[in-house]
Amino acid sequence: MKKEETHINDLMEFLSIPSISTDAAYEKEVRRGAEWLAEHLENSGLENVEVLETGGHPVVYADWIHQPDKPVFLIYGHYDVQPAEPVDLWESPPFEPVIRDDKIYARGATDDKGQVLIHIKAVAALMEEYGELPVNVKFCIEGEEEIASPNLVPFVRSHKEKLSADAILVSDTPLMDKETPAIVTGLRGALAFELTLTTAAVDLHSGAYGGAVPNAVHHLVSVLDSFHDEDAKVAVEGFYEGVPEVTEELRREMGRIPFSEETMKQEGGLSELYGEKGFTPPEQTGIRPTLEINGITGGYQGAGMKTIVPKQASAKVSCRLVGEQDPAKVFECVERHVRAHMPRGASVHLDKTIEARAVTMDAWDPFIRKAALAYDDFYENRALFPKEGGSIPIIEVFKEELDAQPVLMGFGLPSENMHAPDEHFHLENFRRGINTVKQYLTSF
Amino acid sequence: MKKEETHINDLMEFLSIPSISTDAAYEKEVRRGAEWLAEHLENSGLENVEVLETGGHPVVYADWIHQPDKPVFLIYGHYDVQPAEPVDLWESPPFEPVIRDDKIYARGATDDKGQVLIHIKAVAALMEEYGELPVNVKFCIEGEEEIASPNLVPFVRSHKEKLSADAILVSDTPLMDKETPAIVTGLRGALAFELTLTTAAVDLHSGAYGGAVPNAVHHLVSVLDSFHDEDAKVAVEGFYEGVPEVTEELRREMGRIPFSEETMKQEGGLSELYGEKGFTPPEQTGIRPTLEINGITGGYQGAGMKTIVPKQASAKVSCRLVGEQDPAKVFECVERHVRAHMPRGASVHLDKTIEARAVTMDAWDPFIRKAALAYDDFYENRALFPKEGGSIPIIEVFKEELDAQPVLMGFGLPSENMHAPDEHFHLENFRRGINTVKQYLTSF
Repeated sequence: MKKEETHINDLMEFLSIPSISTDAAYEKEVRRGAEWLAEHLENSGLENVEVLETGGHPVVYADWIHQPDKPVFLIYGHYDVQPAEPVDLWESPPFEPVIRDDKIYARGATDDKGQVLIHIKAVAALMEEYGELPVNVKFCIEGEEEIASPNLVPFVRSHKEKLSADAILVSDTPLMDKETPAIVTGLRGALAFELTLTTAAVDLHSGAYGGAVPNAVHHLVSVLDSFHDEDAKVAVEGFYEGVPEVTEELRREMGRIPFSEETMKQEGGLSELYGEKGFTPPEQTGIRPTLEINGITGGYQGAGMKTIVPKQASAKVSCRLVGEQDPAKVFECVERHVRAHMPRGASVHLDKTIEARAVTMDAWDPFIRKAALAYDDFYENRALFPKEGGSIPIIEVFKEELDAQPVLMGFGLPSENMHAPDEHFHLENFRRGINTVKQYLTSF
Repeated sequence: MKKEETHINDLMEFLSIPSISTDAAYEKEVRRGAEWLAEHLENSGLENVEVLETGGHPVVYADWIHQPDKPVFLIYGHYDVQPAEPVDLWESPPFEPVIRDDKIYARGATDDKGQVLIHIKAVAALMEEYGELPVNVKFCIEGEEEIASPNLVPFVRSHKEKLSADAILVSDTPLMDKETPAIVTGLRGALAFELTLTTAAVDLHSGAYGGAVPNAVHHLVSVLDSFHDEDAKVAVEGFYEGVPEVTEELRREMGRIPFSEETMKQEGGLSELYGEKGFTPPEQTGIRPTLEINGITGGYQGAGMKTIVPKQASAKVSCRLVGEQDPAKVFECVERHVRAHMPRGASVHLDKTIEARAVTMDAWDPFIRKAALAYDDFYENRALFPKEGGSIPIIEVFKEELDAQPVLMGFGLPSENMHAPDEHFHLENFRRGINTVKQYLTSF
């Protein structure tokens, strides 16, 4: 019991660091997150602990390599978090972790600090119990996952020897439900960009000019609306190139994933689901690509009215990609589409911010099979092997560059408000996660 | 020279008060504007000076009624101003007036504090020169013009006796150009509303949910884009009801208004004009109605990316109305249109904020003709009688309730960045305006 309290206190400390990677104002806090982690790895018996500089936020490395006949696991995760906005919708402050009803509430609780700590605590426990580890491990915990790992990609390429491994162990995905483990075998790729449209040098008075001059918001909504057709299909020519055909077999596989429309509606407070015609929600989020507007801004947004013709408007857009879709090519298609659909009198600027290919894994690989078995003692149901809608851009790079098998063992839950207010993590899964990882590493 | 300096110092003092009526945070400053004005009217020899309470910001009243055989002029204007956002685009702070190149820069310089002060200074000068005025005057300067005078309407209705007049003298419109005076004979009406669209209770992770749930920004841009067709015509059924037919005569009249596409482009920094097909820019802004998005907001707008499916998005929209268009009916049409074009899975809320009918005046009315003559000594060209694209909602109410002739003598310039950063007022027109108004009042 004493040890569990220490674990939770450590998690609270880790969660209290606002390591928001996307916002330059938090740069020091991100570094503080890396340093906290390095110290913690050191204290857990890991060796060669380093905070390694990159072009952006640092990477934390540590290893323990003393079992020449056993496999090497590269344990990957991230210590950076999403922004906490809108902060006023949190029941408790996002960086003052609190426990309510055996759940810990804080930004980063489930994504990904809680899950990263599972691995460190599992390794520390094995070390304490046996004085050594049953396998070889390397930790590589980055600070830029939430901004699509722009510096980890060159880092991996220039540190292939250092990071070489047989398997990449990652916990940054959810369980299927409370009692059903999940090992993700597919991740969507990503392409994100900001689209800024300008029509004038200044905001103009809508009385004097309105009706005779281009309005940046009108033009932007016109372009954005053209991205989808009435069936919620992406209407950008060439967008679907490389998307795998949906075979009967794939449909059956997707159909086996437990899914409740009611639960999904409840989770989001939705009156209806809405998606590409002809596909089920698990297909829409698992094996189909998307183009989603994440934010829009333009003109007057303060209290009351201001009767202007806005000179500029912009939108943040991100795509989830599948199969062989090439993010660079998709971006070209989007650019071409935007220029073709741009109304007269506007100039447009597209700024690409994230780019990553989709990745798929073989559910029959022995590293994955053993992971599925490791859950058995701690969860009621057998593990499933879903395709996941999210993107972990670096996984594809690891797979290609290191020729290692990714193993995505999830311990979060889909209902834990990842990226939203009141993010939390079920402490029961923190405890079970530590035991599952111990079991997994001991099985080799 | 000494007197002119005093005038300009007074204008600077007036302009340094941030009397922003739309923003509740500035309530005290708006009241300070009213009190400054009352004191100033008192010092200018006006009588019965009062700061009168309304349901919102106060009305400043003063009069001088000692010429029983002469007409009564109700001088109307406003001491409130538009918000100063975006403040960082101002060359000097919006409420720290400075003079550059014989122009005074500050929020409210041309709209409408500078023009209000012209009348006070003209009356004060006449009083000083003759010990009396050649006509009777009443001042009624309000603090809610920029929010469409919600409290002045009932105020006028309940103070008909107090405000009774033969003519309503207003300077809140521009000259045609530096040397061509303009007396506006048509004002567009207005309808403004805020449209808020909600799809979910929380922002959702675009990886886990994206593609299967409604996105509030997608749905909003879809509705907003449906407001116009490809010819930039408003596509809301019933919107054009009450819009006067554009006769050949009206076309000829509009054609006489000097207009330079190049100048309009330069003023706004525009690469192209853009408006309803089949109409010239002076027609588009003068005699045709518009529907304009003034601002839009939704989802993540901070630095970097946040891969969410936004739960809510909203837009501020305003219409300029002409002829017999009824703002209440137009609002009903818009509501019907929005509900008919609303994609599945969204709820919508429309909040009406401004409502005013269009108004037209007879250019041959003697009060207007004498005003045109009054300019002659001070400007190179004869006055013109344009239809104005803007709205001064209270003018219609004055006209109807008091049965008085509106006389809209403009002293601003279209290039003075009204409602935009770096608003300014040409001091040359401040000086000429005082002389013109003295001349006008003396002509009865």
